[in-house]
Amino acid sequence: MAGVTIEPGDTIGILGSGQLGRMLAMAAARLGIRCHIFCPDSGPAFDVAAGQTRAAYDDDEALAAFAARVKLVTYEFENVPSHTAEFLAQRVPVLPNPRALAITQDRLTEKRFLNDLGIPTAPFLDVVDAAGLARAVAQLGRPSILKTRRFGYDGKGQAMIREGSDLAAIFQSLGGSPSILEGVVPFSRELSVVAARGPDGAFEAYALSENQHEHHILSVTTAPAEVTSATAEAARSMTAKIAEALDYVGVLAVEMFLVEDAGKGETLIVNEIAPRVHNSGHWTTDGAVTSQFEQHIRAICGWPLGSTAMHGSVEMRNLIGPDVHAWRELLVEPGACLHLYGKHDARAGRKMGHVTRVRKP
Amino acid sequence: MAGVTIEPGDTIGILGSGQLGRMLAMAAARLGIRCHIFCPDSGPAFDVAAGQTRAAYDDDEALAAFAARVKLVTYEFENVPSHTAEFLAQRVPVLPNPRALAITQDRLTEKRFLNDLGIPTAPFLDVVDAAGLARAVAQLGRPSILKTRRFGYDGKGQAMIREGSDLAAIFQSLGGSPSILEGVVPFSRELSVVAARGPDGAFEAYALSENQHEHHILSVTTAPAEVTSATAEAARSMTAKIAEALDYVGVLAVEMFLVEDAGKGETLIVNEIAPRVHNSGHWTTDGAVTSQFEQHIRAICGWPLGSTAMHGSVEMRNLIGPDVHAWRELLVEPGACLHLYGKHDARAGRKMGHVTRVRKP
Repeated sequence: MAGVTIEPGDTIGILGSGQLGRMLAMAAARLGIRCHIFCPDSGPAFDVAAGQTRAAYDDDEALAAFAARVKLVTYEFENVPSHTAEFLAQRVPVLPNPRALAITQDRLTEKRFLNDLGIPTAPFLDVVDAAGLARAVAQLGRPSILKTRRFGYDGKGQAMIREGSDLAAIFQSLGGSPSILEGVVPFSRELSVVAARGPDGAFEAYALSENQHEHHILSVTTAPAEVTSATAEAARSMTAKIAEALDYVGVLAVEMFLVEDAGKGETLIVNEIAPRVHNSGHWTTDGAVTSQFEQHIRAICGWPLGSTAMHGSVEMRNLIGPDVHAWRELLVEPGACLHLYGKHDARAGRKMGHVTRVRKP
Repeated sequence: MAGVTIEPGDTIGILGSGQLGRMLAMAAARLGIRCHIFCPDSGPAFDVAAGQTRAAYDDDEALAAFAARVKLVTYEFENVPSHTAEFLAQRVPVLPNPRALAITQDRLTEKRFLNDLGIPTAPFLDVVDAAGLARAVAQLGRPSILKTRRFGYDGKGQAMIREGSDLAAIFQSLGGSPSILEGVVPFSRELSVVAARGPDGAFEAYALSENQHEHHILSVTTAPAEVTSATAEAARSMTAKIAEALDYVGVLAVEMFLVEDAGKGETLIVNEIAPRVHNSGHWTTDGAVTSQFEQHIRAICGWPLGSTAMHGSVEMRNLIGPDVHAWRELLVEPGACLHLYGKHDARAGRKMGHVTRVRKP
């Protein structure tokens, strides 16, 4: 379905009830937009939304009732089943569009899409069985990384292939799913661009972010990343090209690797595209004029994009698992902006909140 | 009941479902606190809260169920019936305490409380009937203002007494309610202090605000007010004294008149106390390190108060009735922070949202 005009007081739908949906719903509320969350499990977004549906993503009756109550549907995660997206898209606009979802939720399709745009990625080969994995390893060498085409996040669905690794066992350890083998890129830093595109083609990117991971989970983002202005411009320009090619509406994040070579200088390789607001953009709530959450709402509602100007240089640190127990100290730390997601169980590896520190210029 | 320790993940109760409750609930959510709204009518706060009870304030069964679900109760308006506050206070802490409510919801009690603290008010006399009004007018002169002791807000429950006014008719026009007659103070400006006090006695005030009203409704707040440093300090000090005397926990606002006299300089007179977050503190969301809403949550949860430092000088303008139709222009105005309350019907005199403009130093 084509776009609609959203006005304050209207209700929009969000698939997913995690912290991203929660922060989207709060940004929408500030602008007078009601949110209705659809998710199989209740989660932190349920607590701040005007409406909630707890139902499976293949429950067509629940999906139809949901579609009837909202003026458009967006989502907080890229693994929305294609049936869900298509079923809803026949009834209300789904933004970003289902094609952006389909491309980005499959590593093989995503990498081919990027290469077709002339955007470099790590070298990769399609792997459908253990024999194919052996052939791919012979071609790309070791170390290399086997990744399932679908449903990977935070390091899940990945296995490193080293000297001596048992290829058949590794292929089985990932469930024998269709996969790709990726060559290892000798990158020095991980970067991301969080940006938005409106239905009119307007494009606004936030400052390039630099990301540090621990145990495959984002730990710290700093912005602006200290790179050459040519690199920052190249990252922005790749992201604009991706958004344009996807006819994208909303906020997206493009994760990149920076390869620093004494001879060739800085080169960027795109790792993956997240068709949604992104953890590496959380700093924008405290550190930019318009947060990524408000920006996404503006874009999908067909409203003008807001300024991405920064209030200063920023550091965003995730509070993972028991890190959250430091909340009392963070409440009194001058300049620290604390965000807690209202989750009860501080399990290891679970994102419980984040803290942003903005250093004014 | 005595205080409790609130932790992220806990649920607190809010009486009232207007925009103040909404902004309190959103500030609480950012800190991982769940909110349960209790109100006879659904309103904008219902849309952003984890729980909702729609019931009358004298529905003891509903109040008991509400009290059983929350760790403390706070409120967004001063006209909470005393039965409601006392019924709840037997079950969970009610903050600010019911005595603060009782004193501030009665103009006569409030003014006597202030004068007992040595804080000046307009001259006033108790009026219980039309004959008493005639005696009071003879004493205070004309013009003077008749105000009902209870349930006045935004100019409601008030009548100006001028030369030739028919006193009996005016007394009846306010329903014949117990009232006070106030002498008219020759003030030049209206000011307010928004401040917070914690259970440990900690006190933090925001910069003095200057308020302009139109048709008895707040129109524009600017801060910091341009007064002498002695006046700003006197305003802060009166507010601290009031908070201390009420054993207050939470955010309160003290409305004041500034009398400027060529001979005596600047004098402050207290007009009224609002035992809650206040429209003249809305600028703190965009213009201060800690918003008044977060500050109230911190105070009632027994958490350390946050910094009241400002990001710059500010102007907050209410969007009243059809003013809200300017939302599209405000979305693109550089530096304007738009807040909409999600109300559908832009009736004349109805607060639909506000816009804050922060001028960085």
